[in-house]
Amino acid sequence: MTDKLYTAINFSKKLSLFSKPWSPKVIAELNEYQFKLVKLKGDFVWHQHSDTDEAFIVLEGQLTIMFRDGRVNLAAGEMYVIPRGIEHKPVADNECHVLIVEPKGVINTGDTQGELTAQNDVWI
Amino acid sequence: MTDKLYTAINFSKKLSLFSKPWSPKVIAELNEYQFKLVKLKGDFVWHQHSDTDEAFIVLEGQLTIMFRDGRVNLAAGEMYVIPRGIEHKPVADNECHVLIVEPKGVINTGDTQGELTAQNDVWI
Repeated sequence: MTDKLYTAINFSKKLSLFSKPWSPKVIAELNEYQFKLVKLKGDFVWHQHSDTDEAFIVLEGQLTIMFRDGRVNLAAGEMYVIPRGIEHKPVADNECHVLIVEPKGVINTGDTQGELTAQNDVWI
Repeated sequence: MTDKLYTAINFSKKLSLFSKPWSPKVIAELNEYQFKLVKLKGDFVWHQHSDTDEAFIVLEGQLTIMFRDGRVNLAAGEMYVIPRGIEHKPVADNECHVLIVEPKGVINTGDTQGELTAQNDVWI
């Protein structure tokens, strides 16, 4: 008989390992999907993901996701799924910590590559 | 110009809508995946999901997921992905609130159907 103690993935511990905003870090995979932690601060770029929905779960702070026809305000303990093909722009006046769930390979800036485009598939 | 206010999915509000343990409620869909809130209390049954991994994110309380060769202890702010085909048994001494992420159609008791098998695809 073995009694191995497996290790939980602790969000606070993982978040303490990086500080750069808009730079998602992969912490887990579920089939072909990934869980990514990201710190948001300021205005992101307008973009969309034409092939996939994207889930935002706010762990700490407050986040507004702007759409062309409106917005959603999210606080810790809230989530929202952005439908595929819908232009959106995350905005966080103060630093906000988010857990993103989306298929492996999704680029953070979607169809709008630029200086905020982060390296993909970086694990912590 | 419109400025529609979209509604965040609030975990606490959704959790206040039901009390029955081991009865997952769908709160969101991401492509062919679902986010489900569940309240756990006591011992679940040993089971496995042969076709998919399964993610547990603990929102409140403490949870142990037992495996045949060990266990993982999870507290609020922690997650774990159970690989497909791995037998597991969730155990919560006190009520625990969990966000599950898995493909649409997954049955809570996997290959071990019985009195704890919950109705699938119930939204709140």
